[in-house]
Amino acid sequence: MLERDPAARNAFEVILTAPGLHAVWNHRVAHFLWTSGLKTLSRMWAYAGRSVTGVEIHPAAKIGRRLVIDHGMGVVIGETAIIGDDCLIYHGVTLGSKTGEHGKRHPTLENNVVIGAGAAVIGNITIHKGARVGAGAVVTHDLAAGATAVGNPSKVL
Amino acid sequence: MLERDPAARNAFEVILTAPGLHAVWNHRVAHFLWTSGLKTLSRMWAYAGRSVTGVEIHPAAKIGRRLVIDHGMGVVIGETAIIGDDCLIYHGVTLGSKTGEHGKRHPTLENNVVIGAGAAVIGNITIHKGARVGAGAVVTHDLAAGATAVGNPSKVL
Amino acid sequence: MLERDPAARNAFEVILTAPGLHAVWNHRVAHFLWTSGLKTLSRMWAYAGRSVTGVEIHPAAKIGRRLVIDHGMGVVIGETAIIGDDCLIYHGVTLGSKTGEHGKRHPTLENNVVIGAGAAVIGNITIHKGARVGAGAVVTHDLAAGATAVGNPSKVL
Repeated sequence: MLERDPAARNAFEVILTAPGLHAVWNHRVAHFLWTSGLKTLSRMWAYAGRSVTGVEIHPAAKIGRRLVIDHGMGVVIGETAIIGDDCLIYHGVTLGSKTGEHGKRHPTLENNVVIGAGAAVIGNITIHKGARVGAGAVVTHDLAAGATAVGNPSKVL
Repeated sequence: MLERDPAARNAFEVILTAPGLHAVWNHRVAHFLWTSGLKTLSRMWAYAGRSVTGVEIHPAAKIGRRLVIDHGMGVVIGETAIIGDDCLIYHGVTLGSKTGEHGKRHPTLENNVVIGAGAAVIGNITIHKGARVGAGAVVTHDLAAGATAVGNPSKVL
Repeated sequence: MLERDPAARNAFEVILTAPGLHAVWNHRVAHFLWTSGLKTLSRMWAYAGRSVTGVEIHPAAKIGRRLVIDHGMGVVIGETAIIGDDCLIYHGVTLGSKTGEHGKRHPTLENNVVIGAGAAVIGNITIHKGARVGAGAVVTHDLAAGATAVGNPSKVL
């Protein structure tokens, strides 16, 4: 976070006041409970965290290292979402599914992906390495490595 | 919720951990207080619920049976909104009004309507039976029964 | 708020139940702490307020008189944002920066600007006097006085 958020002043302050960091830490605990078979407890834990951070991450979602969720309010990350390392997600982002789908129905983000504020990435699609999604963009198809998608409906630049 | 959310595992867990369900229940109480003439108390009740669920429903809004609000954070439902039965609303949805309007200024959703994450439905318009609004879509005109609107500005598919 | 929100019934009720009003008041305290050099305390204060109101305003942001934030959940106002007098901002609005920018990197809103629900205004740009941004619009360029921008990507009407 110190590297990626220009408003972050020092580690002590970030630890105390960054909701996205709290959300990711909270998810680590919830995910451990989920994989330990304590599923209902893990969802209660996740729900309690959501009330503080405004970030809703299903306990089963798989999240890589050094994910930064900036601001965080309104982020929803679904049950079968997979997030690689060094991704950056802004507030209001949805990693969601289409109504009525089952099984692996949420996106996979590879490493170094950036998803802008309020964007919705929907369905069992892959956002490849280093791709970027603009603020408010709605993405329902795979996005190639390094590509940028903007707009609603989204277009690749 | 058990029928419509593939991540819902059992009734006990849904009752404990579904913010949208808590929001709807909270609204039933707020709406009862409002229609009983305890208007300021009803708004305080609604505000308290909003801090937990992230869902803001004006106590006067009329909501039908079996509404599912999935995830819920950021949902805003205005004073003169009317929602039919069996509707499904995702997080971040606005049922709003245009700045400066008065009277019936929020939308009416008929039965079986689905509104995607982050969509804004604005003005005294009607979303007819079974219509769907895509994620992030901004809808300011009536939508015909069974139709689907996507994009910002929205187009009917 | 009494003038601008048709659902506002009286001052007592607004004071008790308007999250946007609480958020602005909270920011006045946080901003005072920030400018007094108590920066970490100011961020902790802002974070506590955010958990109640759902509105995240960086303590350093400069906000003019009579700002109305309606509903408020999900609003994010960045460190170098400047807001004039008599502006109206709906829930879900982002006054944000582009990833990797430094210095003055958030927008300036002149007086009497209206930003619709879920809109994102991004970068060190100016939204001139009386301009309006529609719901869900993504604006990354200056907007002339009195102009209206809608859509994602946004177009000036």
